[in-house]
Amino acid sequence: MMLVAKPHIVILGAGYGGIVTVKRIAKQLSTNDANITLISKHDYHYQTTWLHEPAAGTLHHDRTRMKIADLIPSHVQFIEDEVVEIHPKENKVSLKNNEQVTYDYLVTALGSVAETFGVEGVYEYAFNKWTLNGARELREHTEYMFAKYNNEQKEEYLTFVVAGAGFTGIEYIGELSERLPELCKEFDVPMNKVKMYVIEAAPTALPGFDPELVEYAMNLLENRGVEFKINMPISKVTEDGVILKDGTEIKAGTVIWATGVRGNPVIEKSGFENMRGRVKVTKDLRAPDYDNVFIIGDCSLVINEQTDRPYPPTAQIATQQAEVAARNLANLVKGRPLEEFQPDIKGTVASLGGKEAIGVIGDKKVFGFSANFMKKMIDNRSLWMIGGTGLVIKKGKNPF
Amino acid sequence: MMLVAKPHIVILGAGYGGIVTVKRIAKQLSTNDANITLISKHDYHYQTTWLHEPAAGTLHHDRTRMKIADLIPSHVQFIEDEVVEIHPKENKVSLKNNEQVTYDYLVTALGSVAETFGVEGVYEYAFNKWTLNGARELREHTEYMFAKYNNEQKEEYLTFVVAGAGFTGIEYIGELSERLPELCKEFDVPMNKVKMYVIEAAPTALPGFDPELVEYAMNLLENRGVEFKINMPISKVTEDGVILKDGTEIKAGTVIWATGVRGNPVIEKSGFENMRGRVKVTKDLRAPDYDNVFIIGDCSLVINEQTDRPYPPTAQIATQQAEVAARNLANLVKGRPLEEFQPDIKGTVASLGGKEAIGVIGDKKVFGFSANFMKKMIDNRSLWMIGGTGLVIKKGKNPF
Repeated sequence: MMLVAKPHIVILGAGYGGIVTVKRIAKQLSTNDANITLISKHDYHYQTTWLHEPAAGTLHHDRTRMKIADLIPSHVQFIEDEVVEIHPKENKVSLKNNEQVTYDYLVTALGSVAETFGVEGVYEYAFNKWTLNGARELREHTEYMFAKYNNEQKEEYLTFVVAGAGFTGIEYIGELSERLPELCKEFDVPMNKVKMYVIEAAPTALPGFDPELVEYAMNLLENRGVEFKINMPISKVTEDGVILKDGTEIKAGTVIWATGVRGNPVIEKSGFENMRGRVKVTKDLRAPDYDNVFIIGDCSLVINEQTDRPYPPTAQIATQQAEVAARNLANLVKGRPLEEFQPDIKGTVASLGGKEAIGVIGDKKVFGFSANFMKKMIDNRSLWMIGGTGLVIKKGKNPF
Repeated sequence: MMLVAKPHIVILGAGYGGIVTVKRIAKQLSTNDANITLISKHDYHYQTTWLHEPAAGTLHHDRTRMKIADLIPSHVQFIEDEVVEIHPKENKVSLKNNEQVTYDYLVTALGSVAETFGVEGVYEYAFNKWTLNGARELREHTEYMFAKYNNEQKEEYLTFVVAGAGFTGIEYIGELSERLPELCKEFDVPMNKVKMYVIEAAPTALPGFDPELVEYAMNLLENRGVEFKINMPISKVTEDGVILKDGTEIKAGTVIWATGVRGNPVIEKSGFENMRGRVKVTKDLRAPDYDNVFIIGDCSLVINEQTDRPYPPTAQIATQQAEVAARNLANLVKGRPLEEFQPDIKGTVASLGGKEAIGVIGDKKVFGFSANFMKKMIDNRSLWMIGGTGLVIKKGKNPF
């Protein structure tokens, strides 16, 4: 009898892409086929697409997170550590606290960080971390600003500037504006003292969305007191607020940066050819120069051939890529041909806080209650993908 | 028939002294005898002696406050405004937002502010406002520090320095240390990362308390992780923390100033002869030079003839003074002789968080459960004094 060396599959990141890859690959390969290791800097997964809720304080952050140990099969090894660098030529990964880990196959699903577009002061003065820790800090900062106001009466404490009227910015201000009456009551602050700005450099809010939906969203948010400044780039974030392209200063105790993302800096550091931290992957989702390295989610770049532009980084794409990456890993291990990734965009729904949302499902525009219903079903489906019915029951959202 | 001008009685401040005065005087004088006006900067009263709880976040601040309109009789006029200056020679009071108010009789019950003893940086960098707004800000600041820690890993965010091991400092750290496990869970912070210091310039914690009680309190708090530095003055508060007399710097995200109080600055500004904002009142509680001005509570100074030292400013004394001041106001209006104030110290109990407390009731030392029971009964009695049984039922504390 001969012992055959089993290949070591390493998955980096426990976001949508990483967790779904682990779950699928663990089903497709038996413990005799491969050893599987998941590496993540936290011992928990969280629903990134829900973070606007804990960030505004409308949902507790624990509703968005799950222990990784509860999500992955017991034969998958888990290492809680931060990835510092990938050495694709040596099939190794450097970690912050542990020794290097070697792999035979790698799946890189390390997510993204804020894109500043070169604007000064974003990392220093703006809330830019769309993570569980970042969302919790923003929630606490917001409440702290309200609490400070009554002692110092500085109106800027009650001014909130959201940079970017894309998906994230709109969903966040939707939650904050929805929560405002409660915050004002808790902190004895008159509603009319609170200022909320959404500032967008592009000529429209929610670029890419149907104009009718954009108008619906803007009207609704304006009725809740949100002021939009569209077609107005921010030139600088300072300790006191933001300075706009036209020279105007908006003093604000809280600036939230939501102008989009770039791939995890580990990608650039590791020498992969990239555009803003995203690797233009092959059709079967591998790094162009490394046959044993898959890159998925926000670190990958896939071109939409109809528009000749990259697909925006979304949970939907990351999850679909994870399923293909898992099958292709199995194909590689078993010596079978690889399949190509073909995104299947089912729709997009943006919540606007409370029972409000807008979106497109297939070709159909949805508003208000039905959009909100769809949004919650999408959120529940996302839970189901990583944790099945049990997780939906435990952490899911009631659409009614 | 002749209209007789009714005297105008004005009460400044809606703390223990002000509210009790208003309630008692409104019973002793009919609407035919006098017009009564209460002036306070907020439309609510709060229980100052409970503030260590909302400050640490163990009790919601609304449990400590009551609408003034619900406490005072309907024939008492209420003005929500801040007193800027008293003009005792002209029988007038200047307010921040309204016109001057003239009085025939005045009761000054304006409370106190932090005493810095000349230490630099207290007002700039330390939490020093023992008010409802101040307590709420400290609570939110504390949570914000915990939330920030996980993003920046700076240990000073988790360091809390309490300046002063007197009643306030000890009661506050009792609550904070009691709440620590919950805070650590909510913010994913390891307990051992949190540092709590209580720094006292005097040679003992809780000066004036029985040494056995002091030891009990210190042992208990040390077991919860509190570190005491006794006989160690603070020379400076900075943006980064505190600098001690021996040159040591303690970096801390939160410094709480609790070294004692001085009378409201309005006293000094208004030209009353005073010691640290406190007026040495006559036996019948009037300002020495003004027969129609009563001064009670933290703005007054009454000498304990047994020790030849001033009584410490407490809710107990303020409340007892208010009862005498109310009777003496009635005596003045009705032309009767005035009575003298004689404090009757029933006891002192300091809570230590959770079910723990220490105290002296009469001559008897009390610890633990029985002290905690007494503390809650004292808190309930204080509610009863201002709002009767209904208020105790609504906002009272269950001693069991």
